[in-house]
Amino acid sequence: MSDHRRDVFVLLFVQVTIFILFGYFVRYDESQKGENTIYFMFQDIHVMVFLGFGFLMAFLKKYGYSSIGFNFFLAAILVQWAILCRGFFHLSNLKIPISVESLVEADIAVASVLISMGVLLGQTTLLQLIIMGIIEIAVYQCNFYVGDEILKIADAGASIFVHTFGAYFGLAASFALSRFKRKNDIESDKSLESSNYTSDLFAMIGTIFLWIYWPSFNSAELSGDDQHRAIINTYLSLAASCATAFAFSAILTPDTKFDMVHVQNSTLAGGVAIGASVNMMIQPYGAIFLGMLAGALSVIGYNYITPWIDRNLHIHDTCGVHNLHGMPGVLAALVSAILAAIATESQYHTGLYDIFPARAPTIPSFNQDVYRHIQGDGRTAMQQAGYQILALIMTVVVAIVTGFLTGISNKTLCFHYSFL
Amino acid sequence: MSDHRRDVFVLLFVQVTIFILFGYFVRYDESQKGENTIYFMFQDIHVMVFLGFGFLMAFLKKYGYSSIGFNFFLAAILVQWAILCRGFFHLSNLKIPISVESLVEADIAVASVLISMGVLLGQTTLLQLIIMGIIEIAVYQCNFYVGDEILKIADAGASIFVHTFGAYFGLAASFALSRFKRKNDIESDKSLESSNYTSDLFAMIGTIFLWIYWPSFNSAELSGDDQHRAIINTYLSLAASCATAFAFSAILTPDTKFDMVHVQNSTLAGGVAIGASVNMMIQPYGAIFLGMLAGALSVIGYNYITPWIDRNLHIHDTCGVHNLHGMPGVLAALVSAILAAIATESQYHTGLYDIFPARAPTIPSFNQDVYRHIQGDGRTAMQQAGYQILALIMTVVVAIVTGFLTGISNKTLCFHYSFL
Amino acid sequence: MSDHRRDVFVLLFVQVTIFILFGYFVRYDESQKGENTIYFMFQDIHVMVFLGFGFLMAFLKKYGYSSIGFNFFLAAILVQWAILCRGFFHLSNLKIPISVESLVEADIAVASVLISMGVLLGQTTLLQLIIMGIIEIAVYQCNFYVGDEILKIADAGASIFVHTFGAYFGLAASFALSRFKRKNDIESDKSLESSNYTSDLFAMIGTIFLWIYWPSFNSAELSGDDQHRAIINTYLSLAASCATAFAFSAILTPDTKFDMVHVQNSTLAGGVAIGASVNMMIQPYGAIFLGMLAGALSVIGYNYITPWIDRNLHIHDTCGVHNLHGMPGVLAALVSAILAAIATESQYHTGLYDIFPARAPTIPSFNQDVYRHIQGDGRTAMQQAGYQILALIMTVVVAIVTGFLTGISNKTLCFHYSFL
Repeated sequence: MSDHRRDVFVLLFVQVTIFILFGYFVRYDESQKGENTIYFMFQDIHVMVFLGFGFLMAFLKKYGYSSIGFNFFLAAILVQWAILCRGFFHLSNLKIPISVESLVEADIAVASVLISMGVLLGQTTLLQLIIMGIIEIAVYQCNFYVGDEILKIADAGASIFVHTFGAYFGLAASFALSRFKRKNDIESDKSLESSNYTSDLFAMIGTIFLWIYWPSFNSAELSGDDQHRAIINTYLSLAASCATAFAFSAILTPDTKFDMVHVQNSTLAGGVAIGASVNMMIQPYGAIFLGMLAGALSVIGYNYITPWIDRNLHIHDTCGVHNLHGMPGVLAALVSAILAAIATESQYHTGLYDIFPARAPTIPSFNQDVYRHIQGDGRTAMQQAGYQILALIMTVVVAIVTGFLTGISNKTLCFHYSFL
Repeated sequence: MSDHRRDVFVLLFVQVTIFILFGYFVRYDESQKGENTIYFMFQDIHVMVFLGFGFLMAFLKKYGYSSIGFNFFLAAILVQWAILCRGFFHLSNLKIPISVESLVEADIAVASVLISMGVLLGQTTLLQLIIMGIIEIAVYQCNFYVGDEILKIADAGASIFVHTFGAYFGLAASFALSRFKRKNDIESDKSLESSNYTSDLFAMIGTIFLWIYWPSFNSAELSGDDQHRAIINTYLSLAASCATAFAFSAILTPDTKFDMVHVQNSTLAGGVAIGASVNMMIQPYGAIFLGMLAGALSVIGYNYITPWIDRNLHIHDTCGVHNLHGMPGVLAALVSAILAAIATESQYHTGLYDIFPARAPTIPSFNQDVYRHIQGDGRTAMQQAGYQILALIMTVVVAIVTGFLTGISNKTLCFHYSFL
Repeated sequence: MSDHRRDVFVLLFVQVTIFILFGYFVRYDESQKGENTIYFMFQDIHVMVFLGFGFLMAFLKKYGYSSIGFNFFLAAILVQWAILCRGFFHLSNLKIPISVESLVEADIAVASVLISMGVLLGQTTLLQLIIMGIIEIAVYQCNFYVGDEILKIADAGASIFVHTFGAYFGLAASFALSRFKRKNDIESDKSLESSNYTSDLFAMIGTIFLWIYWPSFNSAELSGDDQHRAIINTYLSLAASCATAFAFSAILTPDTKFDMVHVQNSTLAGGVAIGASVNMMIQPYGAIFLGMLAGALSVIGYNYITPWIDRNLHIHDTCGVHNLHGMPGVLAALVSAILAAIATESQYHTGLYDIFPARAPTIPSFNQDVYRHIQGDGRTAMQQAGYQILALIMTVVVAIVTGFLTGISNKTLCFHYSFL
C-alpha cells in the first residue's frame, strides 16, 4: 500500500512538473493564424494515436483494459512532455511557441512510445511505462533533430524516426527486462496472451482506423503536390499490403483459416513501408509493389521470425511489433535510399529541393516557384542516399542502446498496478 | 488442401495482375494541386466503406470475423481494381491519371460490391466474393459511364448507380446460387443467422458511422451551393428516417420492443432515398418527408417483403439489403425524376445546368457565374425526368442480368475458406 | 398494448408535426456559399453527439441497447426540433434560413438533452425522454438567447449553456421522478447498474471519441486566432485532466486498481472546464492547471459527492453527470469570470471585442483588422465578469426549475418501452 502511494505520487509529480515547465516556457504562437488543413489532418492522427493504438492492443482478452487504459493515460501525459521536448529544440526568446503543428508533432512522437509499449504489453507496470516513455520521448527528439536538421534526410511518414525507432527501442527494453525474469514467469505471462471473439473484434476497430487515417499520418506536414502524392502512395501501399497479408496468411496457416493477428497487423505494414519515401516519385505501381512486399514480409515475420527471436534471443514481443513497425521500417529506409539515389531534378522539377533540401546548391538561388531563395549543401543523389542509410543505422543503434539502458534502469521499479 | 493452395494463388494472381496493370497504365495526375476539401470528404467515405459496412454486417454473431475481415480484404483489393476500371474510361495518352478524386470514386464503386456482399453473407466463399467483385466493378463502371456521360442523369449520391445497382446485382446472384442448393442446406444456413448482445453493439458502430458520414458520401464531388444543399438534405432525411424507423419498428413488433435489425438498417434508408436528388431544390421539408417515407418503407420491407421474397422467390437476403439499398434506391430515382420534371431555371438560377448539364442550350453560351461556355443538349424538364427513369430501368436490368450470370458462373467455385 | 399503440402514435405525431413546421418555416439559406471548414468541425461534433454520448452510456451492461438506441433516436428527432427552436429566434421574413451552422448548433443543443439523459438512464421510458427533450430544447434556446444576446457573455465551448444546463436540468428531473418512487424500486434499479468487461470497452469507444473531437466542439464557431487558441487550450486541458483523473483514481480506490468509471468520465472533465474560457488568454499552463483541477474534482465527485447526493438528497445520477458536466461546468463559468475580470485590450489587441463584444465602446468605431464598424455596450472588465457569473446563476436556476417541473409533468407518462 505504501508502494502504491509512492507510485501514485510519482505520477502526480510528473504531471505537476510538466505544468511548471509549461508555466516557464510555453506560450501561444502568435504568428499562427489558425490554418485549418493541418487541424483536420491532426484529428486523423489523434484518432490513430488515442483510439487506433489502444484498441489494436486490446486483442489480448486479459489486457483489454490495460491496453486501452494505459494507452490513453500514457499518451495523454506524454503528449504534454513531447511538446516540451520538441520545444527545447525550437526556443525563441527562451519561450516555446505552441501551435496546432506542435500538437501534430507531439502525437507523432508519442506514437513511438506506444509502439514500444506494444512489445512490452503485459510485461511491465504502468509506472515503468511512464518512466520509459519520458526517457524515450527525450531520446526520440534528439535522434529526430540530428536526422532531420543535421543529416537532412527525407522521412515524411516517420518510418525511420518513429516506427523503426519505437520498435527497436521496445525490443531492446524487452531484452533487458527478460534478463531478470525466471523462465516460468515468462511462461505464465504467455499463457495470458490469448484473444477471443470479442477482443479480436475490438482490435479490428483499432486496425481499421489506423488503416483509414494512415494517409493523414504520412502527409500531415506536407503540402501541395507532395501531399497529394503522399496520400495516393499511402492509400495504394496499404491496399496492396492488406490484400497480400490476407493471401499470405491463408498460405502460411495450415487449416484454411486466416490468422486474426495477421489481419490486425500485417494489413498495416504497407503504411510503414511507404513512410520514408511517401512523397517521392515511387509511382503508383511502386507503392503497390512495396505494399505487397511489406504485407508478405510482415506475415512471414509473425510466423517464423518472432517465434525464432523469442526462442533464441529471449526477446518477448507481445504484439509482434517487429513485424509491423520494425522490419517494414527498415524496408522503408532502404527504399527511400534507392529512390534518393535515382532522384533527378528533371523528374521532380523544383520539388526536388522540398523533399531533399540538402541537394539544393550551396549558393543561394532564387526559386521562381516558391518565390524565395533556396540554399542547400549541394549534395549529389548518391550522397543523399548514403545519408538516408546513415540515419537508419544511427536510429537503430540509438534505439537499441537507449532502450536497453532504459529497460535495465526500469528493473528497480517493479511495483504493479493494473486493471487486472 | 490443394484446393486451398489453388484458391490462395488465385488471390495472389489477382493482386499481381493489378500491380502489372498499374505499372503499364497508372501515373500521378500532375494537374492536381492537392486541394484538401475533397481529401477530408474522402476520409469520411473511407470510414463508411471500410469500417461502416464491415461492422454493420457484424450483427450476425457467427459471421463477425467474416463480415469485418472479408469486407476489409474485398474492399482493399477492389479499390485498386476500381481505379483501373474507372481509368480505362478516362485515359489520357494511354495513361490513367490518379488523384484523390480517383480514390473517392474507387471507394464509392466498391460500396456497390459491399452492398451485394450483404445479400450473400454466409452463402459464399471469399474467393467467390472476389471474383464476383471483379466482375461487378467492371459492370458498374460501364453502367455508370452510360448513365452519367450518355444519359446525363443526376445522381450525386449514387442512389441509382451504387445502391440500386448493388442491391439487385446481389439479389440476382443470390437467386442464382440458391438454384443449386438443397433445401436443408439453406435451412441450416439460416440457423446461423442470429445476433447477440455483443454482435448487435458492434453492428451499431457500423450503423452510426454510416449515418454520421453519409452527408459526405452524398456531397463529396459537389461544390458551392450544391454541396451545401446536399449536406443539409442528407442530414435531414437521415434524421427523419431514423425517427420514423424507430416508430415503425415499435408499431410492427408485437411485444413493445424495437427490433435491432430495424435500428441498424432502416435508420439509414433516408440517406439512400435522398441520394439521387440530394442537390436539387427538394427543400428541407421535402428531405424530411422523403426520409420518413424511406424509414417506414424499409421497416415494412424487413417485416413483410423480405420474408415474402425468401419464401416465394427463394432469394435469400442475409442483411436485408433490399430494404436498405434496393427499395430506397428505386424511391430515390423516382423522386429525382419528379424533381427533374419540375425544375425551372428561375428556381435554380444558373445552377440548373450544373445539376442537369443536358438541359443547357445546344448553342454554346457564355455563363457569367462560372466564367465559361456552357453547352448542353437542350433537353426539357420532362425529357430530363424521362432520362432519370430510363437510367433506373437500365440499372435494374443490367444489375439483374449480370448478377444472375455472375452467380451462375460462381457455382463452379465452391471451395471454402472462412474464419469460422 | 393499447398504451403501446398510443405511445407510438405520440412518437409519430412528433415527427409529423416537425415535418409540418419545416414545411411552413424552413428554407435553404441562400446566402451561404458552402464554406467547408465548419462542415468538417460539424462532422467531429456529429461523432461526439451520436457515437460518443451513445457509447459512453453503454457502460451499464443492462442498458447497452437502450443507451445507444435511445441516444440515436432521441438525438435524431431532437436535432430537427432544435433547428426549429433556434430558428424561431432568427426568423427572416418569417422563414428560418438553414445552413451547416444550423446543423452544428442543433447538435450542440441536443447535447444538453443527452447529458440530462445520462442522469436518468434506466429511470425513464423513451417516451418520457422524448417529451423531456422537447421541453428541454425549448428552454435551452431561451436561456441561450438571453445569455448570448442579452447578457452577452463569452461561452464558446458551451460549458454554461450546455454542460451546466443539461446536468442540473437532469438532476432536478431525477429529483422530481424519485419523489414518486418507492424505496425498493430504486434499490432494484441500482442492482441493474453494473458494468462488465465488454460493456466497459464499448464505453471506452465513446470516451475516446469524445476526448479526441472535443477541441472541435469547443472551437467550431470560432475563427482565426481565437479558434487556434481554443484548439490548443482544449487539447492541453483534456490531456491534463486525463492524466490527473488516472492518478486520483489510483489514490482513491483502495485496491491498486483504477476505476473504469473514472477513466470513462473524469478524463473528459478538462474539456468541460475549459469551455467557457477556451478562446481567452488562459495560456497553455493555465489550460493544463484547469484540466488537472477538473480531473481531480471529477474523481472526488464520483467517490464522495455523488454517493452523498444519492443518500441525502435522494437524487439518483446514473452516469454521474454531476461530476463530468455539472461541477466542471460551474468551474468553467468561474474561471471565465476571473479571466474576463483581468482581460485588457493590450493583451488581446483587437480580438478583445470578438470575445467580449459588450466591452466595445458604445460609439461605433471603425476597426482596421476586421474592416467593419464595431459597437458595444462599453462594459468594463469587472462588469463583464459580473455578467459571466450572472449567466451561470440564471442557467442553474432555470435548469433546476424547469427540470423539476418537467420531471413532475412526466410522472403521468409511465408506460414503458425498452430494448430490455
